[in-house]
Amino acid sequence: MSNTFGTIFRVTTFGESHGPAIGCIVDGCPAGLEFDLEYIQHELDRRRPGQSNIVTQRKESDTVQVLSGVFQGKTLGTPIAFLIKNEDQKAADYDHLSDVFRPGHGDYTWFVKYGHRDHRGGGRSSARETAARVAAGALAKLLLKSQGVEIQGYVSQVGDLTVNKPYTELDMENIETNEVRCPDPQLAQQMIERIKEVRKAGDSLGGVVSAIIKGCPPGLGQPVFDRLEADLAKAMLSINASKGFDIGSGFAGTRMLGSQHNDILLANGSSGTESAGFNTQTNHSGGTLGGISNGMDIYFRVAFKPVSTIMQDQESVNSAGEKVVVKGKGRHDPCVLPRAVPIVEAMTALVLADHLLRARLDQL
Amino acid sequence: MSNTFGTIFRVTTFGESHGPAIGCIVDGCPAGLEFDLEYIQHELDRRRPGQSNIVTQRKESDTVQVLSGVFQGKTLGTPIAFLIKNEDQKAADYDHLSDVFRPGHGDYTWFVKYGHRDHRGGGRSSARETAARVAAGALAKLLLKSQGVEIQGYVSQVGDLTVNKPYTELDMENIETNEVRCPDPQLAQQMIERIKEVRKAGDSLGGVVSAIIKGCPPGLGQPVFDRLEADLAKAMLSINASKGFDIGSGFAGTRMLGSQHNDILLANGSSGTESAGFNTQTNHSGGTLGGISNGMDIYFRVAFKPVSTIMQDQESVNSAGEKVVVKGKGRHDPCVLPRAVPIVEAMTALVLADHLLRARLDQL
Amino acid sequence: MSNTFGTIFRVTTFGESHGPAIGCIVDGCPAGLEFDLEYIQHELDRRRPGQSNIVTQRKESDTVQVLSGVFQGKTLGTPIAFLIKNEDQKAADYDHLSDVFRPGHGDYTWFVKYGHRDHRGGGRSSARETAARVAAGALAKLLLKSQGVEIQGYVSQVGDLTVNKPYTELDMENIETNEVRCPDPQLAQQMIERIKEVRKAGDSLGGVVSAIIKGCPPGLGQPVFDRLEADLAKAMLSINASKGFDIGSGFAGTRMLGSQHNDILLANGSSGTESAGFNTQTNHSGGTLGGISNGMDIYFRVAFKPVSTIMQDQESVNSAGEKVVVKGKGRHDPCVLPRAVPIVEAMTALVLADHLLRARLDQL
Amino acid sequence: MSNTFGTIFRVTTFGESHGPAIGCIVDGCPAGLEFDLEYIQHELDRRRPGQSNIVTQRKESDTVQVLSGVFQGKTLGTPIAFLIKNEDQKAADYDHLSDVFRPGHGDYTWFVKYGHRDHRGGGRSSARETAARVAAGALAKLLLKSQGVEIQGYVSQVGDLTVNKPYTELDMENIETNEVRCPDPQLAQQMIERIKEVRKAGDSLGGVVSAIIKGCPPGLGQPVFDRLEADLAKAMLSINASKGFDIGSGFAGTRMLGSQHNDILLANGSSGTESAGFNTQTNHSGGTLGGISNGMDIYFRVAFKPVSTIMQDQESVNSAGEKVVVKGKGRHDPCVLPRAVPIVEAMTALVLADHLLRARLDQL
Repeated sequence: MSNTFGTIFRVTTFGESHGPAIGCIVDGCPAGLEFDLEYIQHELDRRRPGQSNIVTQRKESDTVQVLSGVFQGKTLGTPIAFLIKNEDQKAADYDHLSDVFRPGHGDYTWFVKYGHRDHRGGGRSSARETAARVAAGALAKLLLKSQGVEIQGYVSQVGDLTVNKPYTELDMENIETNEVRCPDPQLAQQMIERIKEVRKAGDSLGGVVSAIIKGCPPGLGQPVFDRLEADLAKAMLSINASKGFDIGSGFAGTRMLGSQHNDILLANGSSGTESAGFNTQTNHSGGTLGGISNGMDIYFRVAFKPVSTIMQDQESVNSAGEKVVVKGKGRHDPCVLPRAVPIVEAMTALVLADHLLRARLDQL
Repeated sequence: MSNTFGTIFRVTTFGESHGPAIGCIVDGCPAGLEFDLEYIQHELDRRRPGQSNIVTQRKESDTVQVLSGVFQGKTLGTPIAFLIKNEDQKAADYDHLSDVFRPGHGDYTWFVKYGHRDHRGGGRSSARETAARVAAGALAKLLLKSQGVEIQGYVSQVGDLTVNKPYTELDMENIETNEVRCPDPQLAQQMIERIKEVRKAGDSLGGVVSAIIKGCPPGLGQPVFDRLEADLAKAMLSINASKGFDIGSGFAGTRMLGSQHNDILLANGSSGTESAGFNTQTNHSGGTLGGISNGMDIYFRVAFKPVSTIMQDQESVNSAGEKVVVKGKGRHDPCVLPRAVPIVEAMTALVLADHLLRARLDQL
Repeated sequence: MSNTFGTIFRVTTFGESHGPAIGCIVDGCPAGLEFDLEYIQHELDRRRPGQSNIVTQRKESDTVQVLSGVFQGKTLGTPIAFLIKNEDQKAADYDHLSDVFRPGHGDYTWFVKYGHRDHRGGGRSSARETAARVAAGALAKLLLKSQGVEIQGYVSQVGDLTVNKPYTELDMENIETNEVRCPDPQLAQQMIERIKEVRKAGDSLGGVVSAIIKGCPPGLGQPVFDRLEADLAKAMLSINASKGFDIGSGFAGTRMLGSQHNDILLANGSSGTESAGFNTQTNHSGGTLGGISNGMDIYFRVAFKPVSTIMQDQESVNSAGEKVVVKGKGRHDPCVLPRAVPIVEAMTALVLADHLLRARLDQL
Repeated sequence: MSNTFGTIFRVTTFGESHGPAIGCIVDGCPAGLEFDLEYIQHELDRRRPGQSNIVTQRKESDTVQVLSGVFQGKTLGTPIAFLIKNEDQKAADYDHLSDVFRPGHGDYTWFVKYGHRDHRGGGRSSARETAARVAAGALAKLLLKSQGVEIQGYVSQVGDLTVNKPYTELDMENIETNEVRCPDPQLAQQMIERIKEVRKAGDSLGGVVSAIIKGCPPGLGQPVFDRLEADLAKAMLSINASKGFDIGSGFAGTRMLGSQHNDILLANGSSGTESAGFNTQTNHSGGTLGGISNGMDIYFRVAFKPVSTIMQDQESVNSAGEKVVVKGKGRHDPCVLPRAVPIVEAMTALVLADHLLRARLDQL
C-alpha cells in the first residue's frame, strides 16, 4: 500500500527486476497537456543501463509504451499507463542468492517483512523500479515546463571529489557533456577516473546529487505537514541508496548566526536575483520559507551511499542464520551517481507537479 | 488539506498562535491502549515555553485536555481529541507587523499563497503549532512503549559546538539534566553559555538534533515510496526551521567505499550489538535496509537553521513592495534546539506508530 | 482511521455522546471565504434535540465555538476547528446497558470490534456525532452558496405516508413551516399525528428524506470510482439508520425502457428546465451522466429504518451470551426523519464542496 | 485522481475502450496468498462480451496477463499488475459520434469536464473499464475465500419481471445455469425472452442485481464514515448505469415499525441462522449494525437503469448546441444485468477485502 506517490498528481508503480515488465499509472494529470513521447523516452534513456562504460552493462532498451490516457496528442484527464518490458534478464545469475542475505541490501529486511521474496536481481527492491518513476517524472516535467518551471540535477560529489563552487557559478550546459553528469569538466574527468579505478578494485563509491529548480512560482507547499521541503525530502529518501537530504544552507547553515542567515527581502526595483516573487539579497533559505516556495531558486542536495553490490567476497548469513560467503558477481554500477541524476529530477518533478496543482485550491 | 500526518495512525492538527486554542485529533489509535495523561502532559512540559532561561519567556502552561476517545483508562478505538488553550497572547506585540514581511519568516509566502493571513505571532506558521504534534506524539510513544520501542533525542550541535562522539559512547541519562538537552555535560555548559552570549547580542543560533530509536522490530517501512527513512525525512523537514536530514552514515558516508560501508550480517550466536533481527558488525545503514528496519538501532540527524527572529533592526519590504525596517521585539528563543528535541521525538513516534500498524498488513 | 470524510474539503470528527464535547476539524477550505457563524449555528439548531415536541427531549443548546482558521471574518486556508460541548448528559440512564446488547443497535458490533466500548448513550455510535457533520456541512454550504449552489432536503415519507408528487410540483417554502419538514402541509399534519401515536405506543417509525441540488455546474464528479452519485451514496449510507439511496429514476426507473428513460438533450434556444449546461427534456438521470453532473437538478432519496430504541421490553443477550430483557427508557426520537433533513443536507454539501474544488484540477 | 479504490487493498485502473489495453494495479494485497490465475480468468469470462446471445457481440477474449507481484505461485506483497489487451476495436463505428452527445451517455459531461474526449466507444466511460475491476475483484475474492468469506450475486429483476422470494428460499446453484444469471429457472426463461423481444425492438431494459455475502466475520466496517454499507453503496454506485442501492430491509423497511424491524439477538445455544457472531431471530438489518458487520448474512440490491444505447434514432445536440439525430448502431447489450453480476461481486469483494485488512488495526 505504498506504491503510490503524490496526492493530486499521483503515480502508482509496479514491477520486479526479473518479471515480465515494470511500469506505472499516472492518475491526476490534467486534461489538455501536450504529450511528448519522444521527450519521455529521452528521459528514460538518461537513466538507462549500458548508456556509458561507467555504469552497469545490463542491456535494456527501456522502450516505453503508452497504454491509455492520451488521444490526439493530448492528455485526456484519464489515467496514463506506461509499460516498459524487461528484456535482458539473467535470472540464473542470482541462483546462488536465493537463500542468502547480501550485506547492505534489503534481502533480509524484505524476507522478514513478507515471508518470501523474489531474490532475482533484488526483485522489487532493485533500482530497476526507478525507470517507472522516470517515465512518470518526465510527464510531470512536461506539465511543469508548460508553466515555466525547470529542474536541473547534477553530480556534485563522487567519493571525496567535490564541486566546491556554488551552483550559480557553474555552467549547467556541461552536465550532459560527460558520462558522470558533473558541470565542472575537469572534475568530471577525475570522477570518471576514480570510478574506473574503484570498479577495477571490485569496490564501489557514493556521492551527492544536487538539484536546482528554476521558475517555481511563489506559493507552492502545503503547511503544516506537506511543506515543500518535507515532500522533497521524502521523495529523495524514497530513492534507493539515498541517505540524506538538505535544502538551502542545509547542514552547513546550522553554524551561521541568524543575522547572517536571514535573507533580506528587496523592495521593488532593487537589483538582485530574478524571482517570481520578491527577490532576496541572499538565498540561504533555498527557495522556501515556512514550507512554501518564495519564488527564488530552490536548491537541495541528496546523499547516496556507496553501492552495496561489490565484486568481492563478503561474509554474511542465510535464512537459517548460518555463516555464508557471498560471491560478488553480476552486472552492476560501481557508482550510481550518474544514473541517479534523472531519478532525482523525476522525483522532484513529481513533487512539484503535485504542489502546482494543489496550489489551485488555496484560495476561493 | 495538509494538516493530517500518517496513513493509519493519523493526526490532524489545528490552531493559530493567537487564536483561542490549538489542538489535534488522533484517528487510528487502536482500542485497548492504556492511556497515561500524566505522561502526555510531561512531554508537553518538555516543549513548553518558559521552561528555562535559555528559551522564550512566553507564559503558557500548555495544559492538555482530552475531549474524546478514552473510557475507563483505555483508548476506545475512536478519535482522541486534544485541546490546549492559548493563554499568554500579546497580540499587540505584532501590530507593527500586520503589513510587513519579516526576513527568514513565512510572512510573505503565506500572504501570497492565501491572500490574507493572521500576522499575530506568525498565526499558523508559529512553532506553537508543534505543541499539538507533541501531544499526538506522546500518545504514539505510549503505543510504541507497549511494544518495546523507545525514542531518544538530544542536541548534538549548537552553532559550531559539536558532540563528536558516536551516540553509543554517550550517556543518555544526562540529556534531561541540563537545559540544552545535550548528553555531554561539559559541552552542554558551553552550549548554554554560547546561547546566552548570542541572545545578549540580539542574535540567534542553529544546530543539530540527533535521535536514536531502540527496540524497533525488523520489518517496518513500506517500499517503494513509504520507506521508513523517507517518512522520517518528511516528518523532520515538516518541523519549523529544519533544513536537513540524514540517517546512519548520512552525508559523511558518501565518502566511504562500499567494502567499508556494507554492514556484515552476523550468524546466530555471534556477539555484537543486540538486535531484534540479525545483528550486523557495524551499523552504517542506520537501522534500515531497502527502506525497511532491520532490527538494529535507527539513528538520524536533523539540521535546524538559526532562529529567524532576532532582536536587531533588519531591512525588509511591506506588501506594497516598499522598503521598511523591521524592529526586533517580542519573546523568542535565541536557539530552538533544546525545545526541538521533544518535537523531533514526537514526529519520530508518529512515523513509527504508523509503520508499526501498517506492518500488520504485510502478510496473509 | 475513518473519521475523515472528503479528499480536498476534508472533515475529521470526534466525540462520544457522553464525553466532554464533540466537534470536528475542517481542512481544505479555501482561504477568503466569508465566514458566517450565525448561519452555522442556525443549521445546528435545525438538528438540535428538543427543537419540537416530536423529537427527543435531551436538552442540548449545541452552541458551536470556532477555535481556529478564521481571521477578520474570513477563512485563512488553515484548519477550522468546531467545538460543541455536551451539556445534558444523563449517563446513569445507561447503567443498565453496560453489559447488554440492544437489538437494532451497534452495541454488539462495536464491542466485538474494539473489545471495549463506551456504552453511555451509544458512545461514538450515537447520532449525537452528526452535530459535528452539520457544523462542517454548514461551512460547506457557505462555500457552495458563494458559487450559486443550493441544497434542499425534505421528508417525503414517514411510515407509509408518502409524498406522491414529483419535487417540481412541491412548494419548498413550506418545509420549515412544520415540525416534520414535509413540503405538503396536509401530509405534514398526518405525519405529525402518526409520530405522536407511535410514540404513545412506545414504538418508532422510519421513512425517506429526499434532497434536491439546484445550481450545480456541469462537470462535477470524478470517474471512475468517485462518481458524483457514488460519493453521495457513500455519504448518505454513512448516516446512522440509513438503509438505502437512489438517484433520479432510481429503483423505479429499472422498470422503464431505454427509449423512455433516455433524457433528450435540447438544442440551444429550446425551452425547458433551466440548466447550467445543455437542458434535457426530462431528467430521469437525476442530474448526473457518466458519474458527472450535467447541470440539471440533482435529486435523490435516502431510506431510514425505524428508530431502534423503543419504549418496550425486548429480548436480547449480554456479553456472556445469556438471555436478558432490555427495558426501553431514556429520551429518544420516535422518528428521526425531521432531524435527518439537516444531516442529509450537510453530508450532501460536504460531497459537493469537495467535488467543486476537485473540478479545478480537471484541465490544464 | 479517482481511479483508485480502497484504502489498504487498493486497485488503480486504467484504459479506454479503444486504446491498446486496459488493466490495473492492485497494491496492498498481503504477501503469501496463493495466486490462482485460472480463477481470475474464469471471473473475467463471466463478464466477457459475446459470452451468450443476449449480450453484446463485441469479440474480446479478455485474456488477462499478470506482470508483477507473484512469485512461485504466491503473492509477494508487491503491486500486482493486470493487463488485458483490447482486440476487437471498431473505432470507425464511432466516427459519426465524434462531435455528438448521445442521450443517456456521459458524452456531454465528459466533454464539459475535460475539454476534449476519446469518443470511440465511450473511451474511458465505456463499461469495458469494468474488466479491470473484475480482475482485481477476483484477486480480492481469493483473499476472502482464504478467510471463509463468499460472495454471490444474481439477477433479481429484469424490467418488471421480479424474483419475489427472499434469497434464503432460492437455489443459488441455478444462477450460472442460465444466460441471465437468475436463480429461478422459470423466471430466467421469461427474462431471456423479454430481453430478446426488447432487443428486436431496438430498445433496452433495466433491472436489479442482488448480492449475498456469507461467512463475513463480525467487526468489519469503520465508523463513522467508512461504515461497511457506506463503502458498499459507493462501490455499487460507481458502476456504470447503477442508480440505487439498498441493504437489508432497505426502502421497504422504511414502512415497518421499530418493534417489527429490530432483529432480536439470540442467546447462546438458541437455534437460528448460523452466524459467526450472535445470531439474530430475523435479519432486517442485512448483516450490519452501526456500520459494522454482525456476522449474519449481508445482503443488498443494486438498481440498474435501462441501457442508454438503443437501436433507434434519437434527437440530441452537437458541441455547437445544434439539433442532430443520433443513429443507433454498433454492438451493445440490450440489458446489462447478466454481465453486471460479476461486476457487482467484484466491487463487493474489493470492499470486503479492504475492510478485512482494516479490521486488523482495530485493537492493540
